Amino acid sequence: MLENQRIVLASRPTGAAGPENFRLENVTLGEPGEGQVLVRHHYLSLDPYMRGRMNDSRSYAAAQKLDDVMIGGTVGEVIASHNPRFAKGDYVVGMGGWQNFALSDGKDLQKISTSGLPIQAYLGPVGMPGVTAWYGLNKIIAPKAGETVLVSAATGAVGSVVGQLARLAGARAVGIAGGPAKCQYAVSQLGYDACVDHRAPDFADALKRALPSGIDGLFENVGGLPLQLAFRRLNPFARIAVCGLVASRYDGTASAIPDISPILTMRVKMEGFIVSEHLDIWPQALGELAAHIGAGRIKYRETIAQGLEAAPAAFFGMLKGENFGKQLVKLV
Amino acid sequence: MLENQRIVLASRPTGAAGPENFRLENVTLGEPGEGQVLVRHHYLSLDPYMRGRMNDSRSYAAAQKLDDVMIGGTVGEVIASHNPRFAKGDYVVGMGGWQNFALSDGKDLQKISTSGLPIQAYLGPVGMPGVTAWYGLNKIIAPKAGETVLVSAATGAVGSVVGQLARLAGARAVGIAGGPAKCQYAVSQLGYDACVDHRAPDFADALKRALPSGIDGLFENVGGLPLQLAFRRLNPFARIAVCGLVASRYDGTASAIPDISPILTMRVKMEGFIVSEHLDIWPQALGELAAHIGAGRIKYRETIAQGLEAAPAAFFGMLKGENFGKQLVKLV
Repeated sequence: MLENQRIVLASRPTGAAGPENFRLENVTLGEPGEGQVLVRHHYLSLDPYMRGRMNDSRSYAAAQKLDDVMIGGTVGEVIASHNPRFAKGDYVVGMGGWQNFALSDGKDLQKISTSGLPIQAYLGPVGMPGVTAWYGLNKIIAPKAGETVLVSAATGAVGSVVGQLARLAGARAVGIAGGPAKCQYAVSQLGYDACVDHRAPDFADALKRALPSGIDGLFENVGGLPLQLAFRRLNPFARIAVCGLVASRYDGTASAIPDISPILTMRVKMEGFIVSEHLDIWPQALGELAAHIGAGRIKYRETIAQGLEAAPAAFFGMLKGENFGKQLVKLV
Repeated sequence: MLENQRIVLASRPTGAAGPENFRLENVTLGEPGEGQVLVRHHYLSLDPYMRGRMNDSRSYAAAQKLDDVMIGGTVGEVIASHNPRFAKGDYVVGMGGWQNFALSDGKDLQKISTSGLPIQAYLGPVGMPGVTAWYGLNKIIAPKAGETVLVSAATGAVGSVVGQLARLAGARAVGIAGGPAKCQYAVSQLGYDACVDHRAPDFADALKRALPSGIDGLFENVGGLPLQLAFRRLNPFARIAVCGLVASRYDGTASAIPDISPILTMRVKMEGFIVSEHLDIWPQALGELAAHIGAGRIKYRETIAQGLEAAPAAFFGMLKGENFGKQLVKLV
């Protein structure tokens, strides 16, 4: 018998979401049954897609059920196993949710190596965010050398990988980030050719100056004003990968495009995607990402909240851009 | 020496365009020189893309030059030739412009047969509008049997072919057209499963009722309110072919999307295209279209204005939807 702490979705947001939509619970976990694995989570991943799951709307995934443990990626250690595929001491990634321990039938768990990368990297650049970056950049934008790729949320878990992959492909990478510290980091550490602060009063002018040759690829994580401004700078045959619209989804407001005519006049392709629907590319993507990270060609950064009870505040902070790099919660 | 009448772009529109932006001129044409062909135009094609060419904006094509003959597709008869590829009496399609006669080096001319289809069909279903329909439907929407394809300007030169090709592909075809006569024609003659009148007071509700299974493919010719309403009915993995935004471009107002989040939540692909940039598919498309028309599987309808001086009014009438089917000007 084990005391488990978990966070469930207590209510659906009406308008802006907040910590009051979650509830911390203490429950008792039994021993793993036949075929089951008991995992102690070391890290919980916080990701923007979770905001969408809180709604009961017509969306790309089944809504998170009320009073169920909140969905989330986890990395942890097997502490008991009655499943022949896993042994005590194995480290695994899975979708264990916002809780300290999870019982699993093992189907959603994958063993990871503890010898190379830090285990939490499997929730970031060699996990779902990294593959998201890889898919949107390579399968939708497909940048050619010399083209310009604009990346919003440029230093986040996804954006930071997009920018570095774009540079590795020979493209000019321009980022949009919140505040001078992130913009400086984007250029000095991640290798962006330029990064524009969307909180600066001259944002629109600065963005225009940073895009002297327009935009050939746009990796959209945010929506809102940055997307509207980018629409005015699209080049012929530009590709837009719509990965997230977090700016608008956070508080339930809509993300508008005042004039979509560039889609026609510039023959633009705009495509939304969900990386979990493209499992065929994960092995290739993860292999390439691990190689880039191992060789130092892709860098990443983390913001780590301590303890499960810190997860809601860290989550809403991330939606407002208060994180710097991949947002994690350390659970042990 | 030959008296030629032509219409030139006299000024660029500021806001709504009108006949005052054109000027009718009488000029004298010389004899064709070495390599040249003299063509007497029988029909001039009027098409929505011409509205975009009137602007001096950053657009997909070089703007129409001021004081030059207005661009336009033509079909006509060679009445004198000093070009070995053409003989007197040949019928040709080309981009002869808004004029009764044209001198050409022959590079833009293609000979057509006068034995099968009426010659003006080469400006419609077996010409640019037909290939536009074919490309957007087959290369962007690629409908599967049982899917729903929504077509705006459903009875126009492009839309009428889209709807019939969609039905031939086994899809459910739903049209949007202006007025009960066009809607009735769409269903009874073109084979649409349903057609909704965008001028009717219950347009939004009627459109919803006509789309019980949502939208898998949207062939967008118009923009404006129909596009906004369609955005709310998109199914997962819907494809949007953006062929025209004539409703908004006519008077220079923008076509807005108040909420683009369906692009993400429904993983939508939205793509603008210009058929003249896809010359590789023209032979296949024209072959298939001619076969369908010859076998009676694709029907079409024309609105014919008489005489060159009627072209400006017919053009602006078409932008307002006053035409019924392909808008032509008969010149002889």
